[in-house]
Amino acid sequence: MDHDCLKIRIEHRAVVAIGPGKAALLDSIGRCGSISAAARDMGMSYRRAWELVDVMNHSFTGPLVRTQPGGGKQGGAHVTELGLHILASYRRLMAAALAACEPELAEIGRHLAPPDQ
Amino acid sequence: MDHDCLKIRIEHRAVVAIGPGKAALLDSIGRCGSISAAARDMGMSYRRAWELVDVMNHSFTGPLVRTQPGGGKQGGAHVTELGLHILASYRRLMAAALAACEPELAEIGRHLAPPDQ
Repeated sequence: MDHDCLKIRIEHRAVVAIGPGKAALLDSIGRCGSISAAARDMGMSYRRAWELVDVMNHSFTGPLVRTQPGGGKQGGAHVTELGLHILASYRRLMAAALAACEPELAEIGRHLAPPDQ
Repeated sequence: MDHDCLKIRIEHRAVVAIGPGKAALLDSIGRCGSISAAARDMGMSYRRAWELVDVMNHSFTGPLVRTQPGGGKQGGAHVTELGLHILASYRRLMAAALAACEPELAEIGRHLAPPDQ
């Protein structure tokens, strides 16, 4: 069964602090160097990407993404040290969960309807 | 850190086949004996509960919930054998994931903003 089907998110104060979408966005901001380029890269609106960043930045003890002064939509952005730390920790959490869930994931997978049904 | 913050869902064909909300709904239908009573129990609309059941029933090789003939909103419903099987498997998956994720969950938890911030 495809491991991509296992989605893990960490909720905090009734919002998702970090999950598959936000982790991918952090990756993309790291690669692209700005929120708007990352949003384009991921096929989401700038507004949506900004909202996800805002939730992350307020869920932790410090920002995970920092925009350059005078930034806004055109400005650059980078993933902070804390952001890289949380991202690495989330990746390790995913790897550990996947390894541990393998048997049950396979069992549930056996009962999923065929993809084209 | 509170274990409730770890949310795991299994996606299939672009929808959530089983996750925290659907598992809780299965539990509730099993206890309450109908979709409408389970919806009330969970503080969600009948329509929403019915939609979640519909997604589950179409995600697997057979229905997880079966409504009584002539059912509709007033009729009874029960969790099928497959439903109980998937629910038990999902619970084992959650337990295995929680045990495996403990260190990284604690690490991420250390950096979450205080609850009242």
